Amino acid sequence: MKLLRVGTAGAERPALLDAEGTLRDLSGLVTDIDGALLSDAGTLDRIRAAAGAGVLPALSAEGLRVGPPVARIGKVVCIGLNYHDHARETGAEPPAEPVIFFKAADTVIGPDDTVLVPRGSVKTDWEVELAVVIGRTARYLESHEQALAHVAGYAVAHDVSEREFQIERGGTWDKGKNCETFNPLGPWLVTTDDVPDPQALSLKLWVNGELKQDGTTAEQIFPVAEVVRYVSQFMTLYPGDVINTGTPAGVAMGQPEPKPYLRAGDVVELEIEGLGRQRQQLKDA
Amino acid sequence: MKLLRVGTAGAERPALLDAEGTLRDLSGLVTDIDGALLSDAGTLDRIRAAAGAGVLPALSAEGLRVGPPVARIGKVVCIGLNYHDHARETGAEPPAEPVIFFKAADTVIGPDDTVLVPRGSVKTDWEVELAVVIGRTARYLESHEQALAHVAGYAVAHDVSEREFQIERGGTWDKGKNCETFNPLGPWLVTTDDVPDPQALSLKLWVNGELKQDGTTAEQIFPVAEVVRYVSQFMTLYPGDVINTGTPAGVAMGQPEPKPYLRAGDVVELEIEGLGRQRQQLKDA
Repeated sequence: MKLLRVGTAGAERPALLDAEGTLRDLSGLVTDIDGALLSDAGTLDRIRAAAGAGVLPALSAEGLRVGPPVARIGKVVCIGLNYHDHARETGAEPPAEPVIFFKAADTVIGPDDTVLVPRGSVKTDWEVELAVVIGRTARYLESHEQALAHVAGYAVAHDVSEREFQIERGGTWDKGKNCETFNPLGPWLVTTDDVPDPQALSLKLWVNGELKQDGTTAEQIFPVAEVVRYVSQFMTLYPGDVINTGTPAGVAMGQPEPKPYLRAGDVVELEIEGLGRQRQQLKDA
Repeated sequence: MKLLRVGTAGAERPALLDAEGTLRDLSGLVTDIDGALLSDAGTLDRIRAAAGAGVLPALSAEGLRVGPPVARIGKVVCIGLNYHDHARETGAEPPAEPVIFFKAADTVIGPDDTVLVPRGSVKTDWEVELAVVIGRTARYLESHEQALAHVAGYAVAHDVSEREFQIERGGTWDKGKNCETFNPLGPWLVTTDDVPDPQALSLKLWVNGELKQDGTTAEQIFPVAEVVRYVSQFMTLYPGDVINTGTPAGVAMGQPEPKPYLRAGDVVELEIEGLGRQRQQLKDA
């Protein structure tokens, strides 16, 4: 099931993209797509049944903005250096256990919204990532099976990163990860029943039409199930929380000099197999 | 003005502690104390006027739990190593610019709520901190005066920290800062008009009655105004966001071996001049 939120920022309505690719209005069934809904199996089943029965009203996608597929996200936990090839290109050793950093939920925007290059930035970089959306409160999970049972679904995330702020300005990576608009998410939340194997998804990212990242989640050092299990040992995950699970090789930081960091006017497109496509134009903050 | 929220967790009502120390019910005037209220100068003035006129109904404090003084906190930005004496005790150089890390807002609990020692933790540590609560959306602030104009008020924060998770487990400090219950906040939000100089506040912390931290915000490497200005260059601060501005010397990590890390049964008390006092009992998660 592909869930999404459409409309102007802050006033999105819940919707579903059906098997035929038609947008369907969910606002007769639920008020929004958020942690409360994602933890409510009964209502999700009612949506699934209504979609199957073909009784949901169609919505015209024409000119409709797509928002982030989850409202009221609590936190965005990020996993660093989680692909073998990306660890190599940054010159880092593959980590012995998952590297955790944070993005604030207020950095999340719609998949096609404008991304702002921060003032003073000369190293704004891209990162296509598989986002995991949590569906049940998770603490001290004991197995991979249990971990996957706490996942509501998956989405495309763009973990926009300012490398000077992240690495050269003292302190933790968070400083380069939390600029406004730095986490496009969506277009859809695809529920787990429609993602048979989260470790077999191709991820691609283009800048101005040129393919820059071309990876697969098969290359993740720590697979989704281990990431969720591991994170739950250090913090409680709540329905509607998001985990960005890391990026494959091909970021600007990993290229030869002069590194092709993003500037106003650039267009970034991202796609993950089965999870949809994003397109952002860059502007100056 | 001292604003607070009293009642069971998740169902707190807004209140005010008046100049005579009497608890006053604000639920006839506002639904809650959150970012929306803190950015609404008119309503804050109405509360101030009602308190001055003595027309707010008294509430019995007897047996009443105190919650965190702000609801729906968006993010908690933390400044590391921001006191000269604390940088020395951890063996770190004083940073050239503020060190930023994050706590998720879901770690925030009331000032006297139970703090949980994470499973597997042997290095749970204390940190008394001055919390700054944001009152106006802040991006790219240009001066210290402008920065202070974006502050709604101040509160006591306990930045509970697990040092093994923070330092020895790979990645950024966030891993040891986001365990559940790791950010007691309150009892009050004291509005800026009642905190004439945030750089002249004494901070104290006791463990089982023994004074462990005894500092002053005069020792901050980066004062509140600089912290707010600085952070706003890297991310947008929204009303209701919180900044924990660092801790003075005296944490367990800075003591000789065997370091007196916290265990179930310990009692931590914290106090900042004019901002009130917290008391937490530790239990195992």
